[in-house]
Amino acid sequence: MNTKIRMGMIGGSLDGFIGSVHRMAAALDGTIELVCGAFSSNPEKSIETGSSLSLPSERIYASYEEMILQEALLPAEKRMQFVSIVTPNFLHARPASLALEQGFHVLCEKPLALSLTEANDLERQAKETGLLFGVTHNYTGYPMVKEAKQLIQSGRLGKLRKVIVEYPQGWLADPIENGGQKQASWRTNPSQAGISCCVGDIGTHAAHLAEYVTGLTIQEISADISTFVDGRPLDDDANILLRFNHGVKGVLIATQVAQGEANELKIRIYGENAGLEWLQSNPNFLRLKQNDQPEQILQAGSNHSYLSEQTLAHCRVPGGHPEGYLESMANIYRNFAAAIHKAERKDTPDPMLDFPSIADGVSGMKFIETAIASGKQNSKWLSI
Amino acid sequence: MNTKIRMGMIGGSLDGFIGSVHRMAAALDGTIELVCGAFSSNPEKSIETGSSLSLPSERIYASYEEMILQEALLPAEKRMQFVSIVTPNFLHARPASLALEQGFHVLCEKPLALSLTEANDLERQAKETGLLFGVTHNYTGYPMVKEAKQLIQSGRLGKLRKVIVEYPQGWLADPIENGGQKQASWRTNPSQAGISCCVGDIGTHAAHLAEYVTGLTIQEISADISTFVDGRPLDDDANILLRFNHGVKGVLIATQVAQGEANELKIRIYGENAGLEWLQSNPNFLRLKQNDQPEQILQAGSNHSYLSEQTLAHCRVPGGHPEGYLESMANIYRNFAAAIHKAERKDTPDPMLDFPSIADGVSGMKFIETAIASGKQNSKWLSI
Amino acid sequence: MNTKIRMGMIGGSLDGFIGSVHRMAAALDGTIELVCGAFSSNPEKSIETGSSLSLPSERIYASYEEMILQEALLPAEKRMQFVSIVTPNFLHARPASLALEQGFHVLCEKPLALSLTEANDLERQAKETGLLFGVTHNYTGYPMVKEAKQLIQSGRLGKLRKVIVEYPQGWLADPIENGGQKQASWRTNPSQAGISCCVGDIGTHAAHLAEYVTGLTIQEISADISTFVDGRPLDDDANILLRFNHGVKGVLIATQVAQGEANELKIRIYGENAGLEWLQSNPNFLRLKQNDQPEQILQAGSNHSYLSEQTLAHCRVPGGHPEGYLESMANIYRNFAAAIHKAERKDTPDPMLDFPSIADGVSGMKFIETAIASGKQNSKWLSI
Amino acid sequence: MNTKIRMGMIGGSLDGFIGSVHRMAAALDGTIELVCGAFSSNPEKSIETGSSLSLPSERIYASYEEMILQEALLPAEKRMQFVSIVTPNFLHARPASLALEQGFHVLCEKPLALSLTEANDLERQAKETGLLFGVTHNYTGYPMVKEAKQLIQSGRLGKLRKVIVEYPQGWLADPIENGGQKQASWRTNPSQAGISCCVGDIGTHAAHLAEYVTGLTIQEISADISTFVDGRPLDDDANILLRFNHGVKGVLIATQVAQGEANELKIRIYGENAGLEWLQSNPNFLRLKQNDQPEQILQAGSNHSYLSEQTLAHCRVPGGHPEGYLESMANIYRNFAAAIHKAERKDTPDPMLDFPSIADGVSGMKFIETAIASGKQNSKWLSI
Repeated sequence: MNTKIRMGMIGGSLDGFIGSVHRMAAALDGTIELVCGAFSSNPEKSIETGSSLSLPSERIYASYEEMILQEALLPAEKRMQFVSIVTPNFLHARPASLALEQGFHVLCEKPLALSLTEANDLERQAKETGLLFGVTHNYTGYPMVKEAKQLIQSGRLGKLRKVIVEYPQGWLADPIENGGQKQASWRTNPSQAGISCCVGDIGTHAAHLAEYVTGLTIQEISADISTFVDGRPLDDDANILLRFNHGVKGVLIATQVAQGEANELKIRIYGENAGLEWLQSNPNFLRLKQNDQPEQILQAGSNHSYLSEQTLAHCRVPGGHPEGYLESMANIYRNFAAAIHKAERKDTPDPMLDFPSIADGVSGMKFIETAIASGKQNSKWLSI
Repeated sequence: MNTKIRMGMIGGSLDGFIGSVHRMAAALDGTIELVCGAFSSNPEKSIETGSSLSLPSERIYASYEEMILQEALLPAEKRMQFVSIVTPNFLHARPASLALEQGFHVLCEKPLALSLTEANDLERQAKETGLLFGVTHNYTGYPMVKEAKQLIQSGRLGKLRKVIVEYPQGWLADPIENGGQKQASWRTNPSQAGISCCVGDIGTHAAHLAEYVTGLTIQEISADISTFVDGRPLDDDANILLRFNHGVKGVLIATQVAQGEANELKIRIYGENAGLEWLQSNPNFLRLKQNDQPEQILQAGSNHSYLSEQTLAHCRVPGGHPEGYLESMANIYRNFAAAIHKAERKDTPDPMLDFPSIADGVSGMKFIETAIASGKQNSKWLSI
Repeated sequence: MNTKIRMGMIGGSLDGFIGSVHRMAAALDGTIELVCGAFSSNPEKSIETGSSLSLPSERIYASYEEMILQEALLPAEKRMQFVSIVTPNFLHARPASLALEQGFHVLCEKPLALSLTEANDLERQAKETGLLFGVTHNYTGYPMVKEAKQLIQSGRLGKLRKVIVEYPQGWLADPIENGGQKQASWRTNPSQAGISCCVGDIGTHAAHLAEYVTGLTIQEISADISTFVDGRPLDDDANILLRFNHGVKGVLIATQVAQGEANELKIRIYGENAGLEWLQSNPNFLRLKQNDQPEQILQAGSNHSYLSEQTLAHCRVPGGHPEGYLESMANIYRNFAAAIHKAERKDTPDPMLDFPSIADGVSGMKFIETAIASGKQNSKWLSI
Repeated sequence: MNTKIRMGMIGGSLDGFIGSVHRMAAALDGTIELVCGAFSSNPEKSIETGSSLSLPSERIYASYEEMILQEALLPAEKRMQFVSIVTPNFLHARPASLALEQGFHVLCEKPLALSLTEANDLERQAKETGLLFGVTHNYTGYPMVKEAKQLIQSGRLGKLRKVIVEYPQGWLADPIENGGQKQASWRTNPSQAGISCCVGDIGTHAAHLAEYVTGLTIQEISADISTFVDGRPLDDDANILLRFNHGVKGVLIATQVAQGEANELKIRIYGENAGLEWLQSNPNFLRLKQNDQPEQILQAGSNHSYLSEQTLAHCRVPGGHPEGYLESMANIYRNFAAAIHKAERKDTPDPMLDFPSIADGVSGMKFIETAIASGKQNSKWLSI
C-alpha cells in the first residue's frame, strides 16, 4: 500500500482564497494528505478553518511555532512531512526557517522573503539541512510551459534572440486597499509585502517564467517603476528592459492597473529559427511560429504523442479536456511530493518532475531589489 | 468537525483514464473521501489500483457485488455512502440497481444504461428507494454553462428561437479499436456500448447540454446517422435536426471522425433579443451577442460580481485563473456530496447546487433510441 | 498600352450599399473601367448616382433597356464590354437576357433568377451566344478558400467524409422590413425575392462554397425551413441535412435571425486524413487539423511559398496585411475581366483565374427550390 | 458631374509591391485617377509599369524631375493635382520639395526623410506654400483605430496611464538582403534608408499609432537597440521605454527578427476607468476592457450605430464584411483627395476626414533620431 505524503499548512484561513487553492492543488492527485495546520495567527480562525477541513482538533494549531514544534514530537510515521507556507510575504522566512530547523521539508509561496538578505540566509540554511525547499511559482507547472522549455532545449528555435514577457492585471487600478480588500491591503503595505507590490507579486512570476522556459539568466535590467494610484506606498506598474546572458534581449511588463485585464501572463520567445507564444489564460495551447510556414498550435493532452515526455508527464487528461490553474499548481505539489518520496528512500529525484527551488526564490528577490533600485535611479541599467 | 462523504468506486482501474478523472474530481474540493473500490472485474487489477490509491486492502474488492454487499455490513459511520460507477455502458444498470437495493446513493456515468427499458427500471427503483441518483453529464458543471442557463432563465435572450449544438471529435477517424485501444474497443462493441457509439457517447452530452441550458425539451428529431469507418458495427457520426417545445428549432452535430478535433463541444442559442455561445475547449468564457451592440465576453471568476449567484457558486478562483474539465466534473461531485449531506439531515437540497439526475439519464436513453430509429428510417421525424 | 475592360452597371444606386461594393471591387485592380450605368429604375436617381461617379451624362441611362440598346450602337472600342447586374433578384434574368442578346458578357448577382425555369432559360441562351456569364458568389474569391480547394484536390485530406457549412446572420431578427429598411424589404417580398429569403440570400452562398471547396455535388437534401418573425411571408431560417456524391454527409445551417451574428459564414470539411476550417470574418486564415498533430494555421500572403499557386494568384499583399470582403469580390471581377481579355483574343481562359459560372447559378436555383420543397414536405429527403 | 482628383506617382514600379498597394488604395473609392507617373529611375521600367496601367505614353516619365516640370506646364484642368511618393526613404525629400515648388500637393511614404534636418526643411517649405502634405502612416486609417481615438477623446477610459504598442515582424530574421531581396536591400542600407532600419520602418508606425490614438505626445524615450543579424549595418530590433506627457508611461517594441510574425502591430491603452486593445491582423475589432465587467468587442461596420461618427465615416461595408489593409490605406487617400477638393474651393477641411500630416512625419524623424541616440548611450532617457 502506497502512502500519501503528509502536509501541514501555515496560513490559508477561509478568509482568503489562496489557502483553498493550495489545498485543492495538493488534494487533486491523491498523493498528499493534509494532516495539520496553523491557518491563521488568530487561533479561532485557525480552528474554524481546520474543522471545516475535517481535521482532528489536536492537529489544528494556534500558531505556526506550536505546529512545527508539536509535530516534531509526533512519531515519524504520523507527523507531517512538509509544510506549505501560504502566508503574506513577511511571514515566509521565519516559519520556513523554523520548519527547516525541525527537519521538515518546505514548500513556500513567492516571493521567498522580505529581502534578499533574508532569502540568502534561508538558502544557506536549506543547503545545510539537505531538506527539500520548493517555491510555488506555479505558472511553470503548466504542461505547455514544459513543452516550450523542451522545444528550446532541443534546439527547435535555434539560438535565442528576444524574449517578451508580460503580466497585466487590473485589480489594483483603484485604491481598493482603502476599502479593506485583504489581498490588496497586505500587498500594498511595505511592512507586510516588502519593498515592492507589483514587481514582487507578479513581476517575479514573469521573470521566473522567462528564465525557466529559456534556460537563460537575466543579467541586467533597466526599469521604469510607477505608482499610478495616489497614496499607494508601493509600485503598481513596471516596464523593464532585460538583458539575458548569450546576448538575448527582452522586455518585461508587469502592471496591476491595466483596467479589465484579469491575469494575462504571456510569454513570447524568438530564436534564429522559430518563435513561441504561450498565454496563461488559454494555457493548453502553445503557438510555434516560423517564417514562411503555417503557424502550429500545439495542444496539451495526455494522448498527444508529438509532445515531449516531460510535457506528457504533466498532462492528466486527453487533448480537448482543458486543464487550468489548479492543475498547474497541483503539478508543483505532486512533483514536490514525488521528490519527498525519493528523498526518503535516498533516491535521486526525477529531473522531469521538477519544481521551482529556493535558488529560484533567491533569484526572484534579486530581481525585485534590482528592479526597484533601477527605478529609483531613473532606469539605470543594473546587474542582477 | 465536518466529515467527508465516503465514496466507493466501481470501475476505474489504472488501465483507463476515466477512473482517475473521477477520483481527481472527487478529491478536489476535500468534501469526499474514497474509502473503497471494485476497480476492475479482474481482481488483481482491482487490488493494484486500490493499493496505488493508498486504500486499505480490506476495502479493495474483487467485484462490485462483493463491494456493495460487504460495505452494507459495515457500521453506518464507516461504510461508503455512495457509489460512483465509471464502467463501460453495459455495466451501469446492474451495479446501480444493486447499490440502490442495498441503500447506497448512486452517481453513474452516462449513458445511463444499455436500453431505455433498463433505464426506466432503474428510474422506478430509484424513486421507490428515495435515494439520490446522479449522472455525470459533467459539461453542465462548468460555471459558464450555469451562467448561460441563468441568463436564459432571466429572460435576457427573450423568447428562444434556435439552438445549435455540436460535439466534434476525431479520435475514431481510424479503426483504432482493431489495434486494441481499450476506450475505442468497448465503445464500438454493441454488447458493451449498446445500440450506439457516437450518439450514445457524445450525442447525449450535447443533447443534455442543450436541454439544460435552455430549459427546453427536445420533442422531435430527424437524424442522419453514419458509420464512416469500414467494418465498425456502430455509428461514428450523426447530423440531427431538432425540434424543441415552444417552437424552438435546432441542429445537433456529433461526430467521432472529424480529424483533428479534440473535444469541441459547443453550443449557440439565439432568442428574440440576444444570442449566446459557449465552447468547452475555452470554457471560462461566454459570448453574449446582440444586433447593433458590441459582443460581450463574460468570464468565469469568483470575483466577477456581474455573474449570477449560481455561476459564482461554481467558480473556485478569481477571473483569469482558468478552471477546466476536472473542475467541471468536481462541481458534479461536490454538489452530489452536498445533496447527500442534506439528505442525511432530511434537509431540502440547495437548488443552486444541482447535478444531472436519473431523469436526465432516462432522457439520454430516449434520445439515443430515437436517433438511431430515425436514422434507420431515412431521417424520419420521430417524437422522443 | 493595356486597355481596361469596360463595364456598364445595372442597379447599384447610391441608396443601397451593394452598388458601391461592386464598383469598389471592379476598381481595385485597375483592370476595369466603369463606363456607363442604369443605376436605378428611377431616372433621377440613376443620374444622381452616375454623376457622383464622374460618368459623362450621355452614358448615364434611365433604364437598363436603354443602356443595353444604346451601348450596342456605340463603336466597338467604346461601348461597354460587359454588364454587372446588382439589382434585386426579380431584376436579374431580364436584363441579363437582353444583354446577352445584344452581345454583352454578363456578371450577375446571385441568386441567378426568380425561378429555376428562368435560370435554365438563361443558361441555354448563354451557351448559345458563347458569351461569358459569371455569378458573384464572391466568398469563393477569397484566397484561403482557393487554398482549401487546392488542398482537397491535392488529396491532403484523403477521401472526404463530412462537411459542415453555416451562415448565421442576425439582421432580420426583427421585422425591420416594416420600418422601410430597403435591403430587408425586397428580400422578404416574394415578388422581388422569389420563393425564399434566407435560403436564397445566404443559403445559396453556403451551398456554393461547399461545392466549390470540395469539388463535390450536393445530391439530396432534407430541410427544416422556418419563419420566426411573425407576418414575414418568406423563410428566415433553415437547418438542412446534406448528402453529397461519394457518400459524403453534411449539414448546412443558414439563418437571418441569429441575434448578434454579423456574417459568420464558416465551413469545415473532414476527410479520412485531415480536416479544414475557414471562417469568413477572419478570412486570411485556414486551419488544417489532424489527429495527434499540432493544428496548422495557414495564412494568406503573397510571400507565403507554402500556399498553392492558385492561392498566391489571389493574394495582393504579403502576409499580415489583411485582405477582406472587397478583395474577395475584386478577385471575381479581376478574373472575369481576365476571361474577357482571353475571350476577345480567342484564347483559352486561365483555369486558375476562375469565377462562379452560370452553371453555379443554376445549381443555386435548384438548391433553393429543393430546400423550400423539402421544408414543405416535413424535411423529406429530395434529390437536387 | 464630379471630377476625380488627378494623381501622379513617383516610384512604384512593377518590381516592388508597394506601388500597387498605393494604386489599389487610390483607386478603391473612385475619387482619384492616376494620370501620370515616374515609376522608376530606370526609364524602361517606368514605361513598362505605366503601360501596364493603361497610362498614355506621354504621361509616363523617365524621371520625377521630368514629370513634375512637364506636368506643371499642362493646363490646370489636365495636370496632376498631387504626387504620391512611394520610393525608398532617400528619395522622399527631394521629389517632395520639387513638387511643392511647382505647386503640387504631396502625399509621401514614411519615414518622411533621411534626417530630421531634411524633414524640418520640408515642413517649412510646405507651410510657406500652403499646399497639402500627407504622410502615409496608413495604420491610423483603420476604422477601429478611429474608434479607439474617439473613445479616448470622449473620456471613456478616464485619465490615461499606460500604453503598450508593439510591432513584431519576422521577415528580416535572416540576412535576406544578401540574397538580393529588394525590400530588404534598401531598408538595411544606410545610404538609402537613413540611420535606422527597424525603428525607421516600423517603430515610427507604432509611435505614430500611439500618439494618434491617445492624443498624447511621447516626450522621453529610453531605447535598447539591437542588430541581431551579423553584418547588418542598421538595427533590426528595438525595445523602448516611453514617457508621454500627462505622466503616461509606455513601452514600444519593434522587431524585424521575430520569426514567424507577419505584421502584428498591436496597441493597448489603459486609463483609470477602462482599457482598449487593437490588433492590426484582426483589424475590424476593438476590445474594451473594464474591471468586473464583461469585455466588449466592438466591431467595424457601416451599420453599427454604437460606433462614433468618425469611425462610421471610415467603414465601407456592414459589420461582418471584413475590411483590411488596403482599405486603411484607401482611407488616407480618400481623405487626402477630399482635402484637396476642399482646398481648391478654399473650404475648411472636414476634421473627421483626417490623415497624417507633415508634422507627424517630422515627429517620426525625431523619434528615429532620438531612439538611435538613446541606444548608443546605453538606453539613456532622452527628450524628443
